[in-house]
Amino acid sequence: MPDNDFRNLWDQLSSLINSNETDQILALLEEINPTDTALAISRLNSDDQQQLLTLLQPEKAAELIEDISEAQAVELIESLPQNQAAAILSELDSDHIADLLGELDEAKAEAIIEQMPQEEAEEAREFLQYPADTAGGLMISEYLDYRSFQTIQDVLDDLQANRDEYKTYNVQYIYITDEENHLEGVLRVRDLLFPPRSTELSRLMIGSPYMINVNASLEDLRNFFEEHNLFGAPVVDETMHLLGVVLPEAVEEAKRKRSVRQFLGVSGIVGGEEFRSMPLLSRSGRRLSWLSLNIVLNIIAASVIALYQDTLSAVIALAVFLPMVSDMSGCSGNQAVAVSMRELSLGLIRPTELARVLLKEASLGIINGLTLGLLLGCVAYFWKGNPYLGLVVGGALALNTVVAVTLGGLIPLISKRLKLDPALISSPLLTTVTDMCGFFFVLSFASALLGKLTF
Amino acid sequence: MPDNDFRNLWDQLSSLINSNETDQILALLEEINPTDTALAISRLNSDDQQQLLTLLQPEKAAELIEDISEAQAVELIESLPQNQAAAILSELDSDHIADLLGELDEAKAEAIIEQMPQEEAEEAREFLQYPADTAGGLMISEYLDYRSFQTIQDVLDDLQANRDEYKTYNVQYIYITDEENHLEGVLRVRDLLFPPRSTELSRLMIGSPYMINVNASLEDLRNFFEEHNLFGAPVVDETMHLLGVVLPEAVEEAKRKRSVRQFLGVSGIVGGEEFRSMPLLSRSGRRLSWLSLNIVLNIIAASVIALYQDTLSAVIALAVFLPMVSDMSGCSGNQAVAVSMRELSLGLIRPTELARVLLKEASLGIINGLTLGLLLGCVAYFWKGNPYLGLVVGGALALNTVVAVTLGGLIPLISKRLKLDPALISSPLLTTVTDMCGFFFVLSFASALLGKLTF
Repeated sequence: MPDNDFRNLWDQLSSLINSNETDQILALLEEINPTDTALAISRLNSDDQQQLLTLLQPEKAAELIEDISEAQAVELIESLPQNQAAAILSELDSDHIADLLGELDEAKAEAIIEQMPQEEAEEAREFLQYPADTAGGLMISEYLDYRSFQTIQDVLDDLQANRDEYKTYNVQYIYITDEENHLEGVLRVRDLLFPPRSTELSRLMIGSPYMINVNASLEDLRNFFEEHNLFGAPVVDETMHLLGVVLPEAVEEAKRKRSVRQFLGVSGIVGGEEFRSMPLLSRSGRRLSWLSLNIVLNIIAASVIALYQDTLSAVIALAVFLPMVSDMSGCSGNQAVAVSMRELSLGLIRPTELARVLLKEASLGIINGLTLGLLLGCVAYFWKGNPYLGLVVGGALALNTVVAVTLGGLIPLISKRLKLDPALISSPLLTTVTDMCGFFFVLSFASALLGKLTF
Repeated sequence: MPDNDFRNLWDQLSSLINSNETDQILALLEEINPTDTALAISRLNSDDQQQLLTLLQPEKAAELIEDISEAQAVELIESLPQNQAAAILSELDSDHIADLLGELDEAKAEAIIEQMPQEEAEEAREFLQYPADTAGGLMISEYLDYRSFQTIQDVLDDLQANRDEYKTYNVQYIYITDEENHLEGVLRVRDLLFPPRSTELSRLMIGSPYMINVNASLEDLRNFFEEHNLFGAPVVDETMHLLGVVLPEAVEEAKRKRSVRQFLGVSGIVGGEEFRSMPLLSRSGRRLSWLSLNIVLNIIAASVIALYQDTLSAVIALAVFLPMVSDMSGCSGNQAVAVSMRELSLGLIRPTELARVLLKEASLGIINGLTLGLLLGCVAYFWKGNPYLGLVVGGALALNTVVAVTLGGLIPLISKRLKLDPALISSPLLTTVTDMCGFFFVLSFASALLGKLTF
C-alpha cells in the first residue's frame, strides 16, 4: 500500500471510529492485511483504540487483537473495562489468552479472569500456571479427543455436529483418553478413512504414542520435533493426563521470540519490547535504566585514564589512540560474544566447556590481535614518525584484542552457568573490561617507554 | 546428559567410526537426541565425519544431515564425493535440498545435481531458482494432488498404495489440479470422511481456494497465515500452475533465521554463521574483514581528536571524558537502532516515515540527553571542582545523545530504502558518527571556554 493510501486509511479509520460507523469499520478492516491493521491501530490514540474495540463484537475485537503485536495487545487489554476485556479474551485461543494475561500484573489478570465464563476462566487459570517457554505455556486446548470404545461413526457424528467449533482445530491427529483423561493412544484422521465405520477406535489407535511432559523446555520441544516428523504432540502431566497439544509452529515461534529478545537485549532494549506508539516518558525511562548502569561502568573504566594523566600530558598523541584501541577491541569481543551465544542456543557448546572456548578464541585473538595491532601500529608510526609510538599503540591493541576475544567468548558461558541472561550482561561487562584494559595497556606501555616517546 | 557421558559419547562415536562398526554407530545415534547428535558430529574431525556418512546408508546419512545445523551440513556435503553427496541429498525434503545446494557454489551444486536421479535432479533445479525467503524458496513438493473427476475411493486407494511415501506428507489438505497442473480447488482430508466413496472430488472441493504466488515475500506469507488460519497454502505461478505447498512452520522458521542473522550482523559476524568447529584461519579472516572496515572508520573518528591536541594538552582531564561521551552516546544510539529495526520487521513503521522517527527520537533524545548530561556534568564538576568542565562535558554528552538517538532511529529506515542490510551497516556507521561528533563537541566546547578551564 503506498504511503498516501496508508495515511488515508488511518485518518479514515479514526473518523469512522469517532462517528461510530461499525459496519464501515468492519468493511475497511476486511480489506486490509494484518500488518496494515496492526500499523493503523498502533497509530490511533488510546481513546480511539478503546472506542474501536467497544464498537466491535468481542469476536471481531479478538481477531484484531490477534493481528497486532503482543506488547500492543497487552496495552490495549489493560486500558479496557474488565468485563469487556474478559469478553474479548474468551474468544481467543487458549495459549493466546495465557500469553496476554501473563503479561498483566497478577491482580489485574485475576480480575479479568473472574469476569470470564466459568469454563474459559478455569482454562485460563490452568494455562497461566505454566511458564511461557515450556510445553505447558505453548500448548493449546483445541484438539480432538475420544474414548477408545467409540467408533469411527461416533467420531464422524461429532465432527459433523460441531463443525463450526472444530474449524480452526489442529485435526491431523485424534487423541484417545480414558474416563479420567489419561492418554491412551493416538490416531491420524487419515486412518479413519479406510476401515468400516463401525470399527472401534481402540482397534485403530497407536498405543503408547510419543508425548511431551508439560514441563518440557523449549530445547526439549525442539529436539522432539526434529526427531519425530509430527504435526503436533500431546502434552501430559506426570500421571499421563492429557492437558493439551503443542504444534511445531508454536515451538518455532517461541524460538523466534527468544532470538528477538536476544537481539533487543544486546542492543540495550530491556524489560520488554519498545514501540514508538508508547508514551514518551515510559520509553525514555526504560532506556535510561539500562544506560545509567552503563554510565557507572564507563566512569570506572575511564578512571584508568585519570591515573595516567602525566603520561598523557607528556605524549598527547596517545589521546587519539585511546578510544581507538578500546573501540576496536570491543568490536572484536562482541563478535566472540555473538558466536558463543549462537553456539549455546544451538547446543553446540556446553556452558562447562570453558577450556574449549578459551583455546579457540585465544588462538583466534592472537592472529587478529597481531594483524590489527600491526595495522594500527603502522598508522601511529607513520603519523608521528616514532616507531616506539607504533610499538606502544600496536602492542596495546594486539594484547587487548586477545583479552577481549577470549573474554567475549567466555562471558556468555559463565553467565549461563550463573543463570543470568547473556544477552543483557555480556555487552556492558565486556565493554567495561576491554575499555579498562585498553586504556591500561596503552598508558602503561607508554609510561615504560616514556623516554623514547618524548624528544 | 552430563558432561562426562557426553565426552564418552564423542570418543565412542569416533572409535566406532575408525573401526567401521556401522551397526553399533546406528544403535548409538538411535539413543541420543538431535542436539547431542549435532554436537557430537560437530566435534569429529572432518575425516571422521566423512567416514561416518560413508558408513551409513544414504537414508540414514540424510537423517543425520537434517539433525545438524545448515552451515555444518553444507560443509559436510562439500567434503563428500559428488555421487555420495547426491545420494544423500536425494533422500531429503525438497526445500532442504534447495537450501543446502543454494549454499554451495554454482558449479559444485550443478555437479552434484547431475549425479542425482532424473526426477530429483529436475526438482532440485526447479527449487534452486527461487530466492530463499520467498514462497518458492520455502515451499515443499510433498503434497497430495488429484484430478476433480476422481472419487473418494480413488484417493483412498492411492493413499493406501503409497502409504510409505506419504508418511511424512502434510496431509491436512488435498489439492485438485487439471491435466495441465492448474490449481482448481482444495479440500480438507476431513471432508473425505462423510460422503459416499463414489463421490467425485469436484463435488467436494472448494473452488478458487486461497493461494500464494511463488514470488510472495516472507512478509506476504506472514500476512497470509495471520489472516487465514490455515495449515498450509498452495503455491502457484502467474498462470495458476500448482508448484508446491508452504507450511506455516516453514514461514516461522524463516522469520527466526532472519532474526538470528540480524543478531549476528549487529554483532559483527557477517557472511554466514561461524562455528568454532570451522578452521581457525577462515574464522579469523571473516571476522577481520568486518573489523578492518571498523579500523578505518575509527581512524576517521579519532582524527577529530588530533585536530584539537592543543586544547587537550591544556586541559588533560578532558581525555578522561572523551571515550565516555562517545561510548555513552553510542549505547543510546544503538537502542534507537534496535527499536527501528524491530518496528521495521513488524511493519509498524514504513521506511519513508523519517519525520515520525525524527520527532519521536529527538524528543526522547532531549530527555535522556539532559538526564545523562546532568549526571556526567556533575561527576566532572565534583572531580575537578570546576563548573565549566561540568558544563563542557555534560553539554557535549547531552547534545551528542540527541544526535546519536535521532541518527540511530533513522539509519535503519534509510538503509532499508537504499536496499542495504540495516543489521550490517547501522552499528559501524552510527559509532563512527557519534564518536566524531562526541569528540568534536567536547573539544570545541572546551576550546571556546578554554580560559575558564585552565587556571
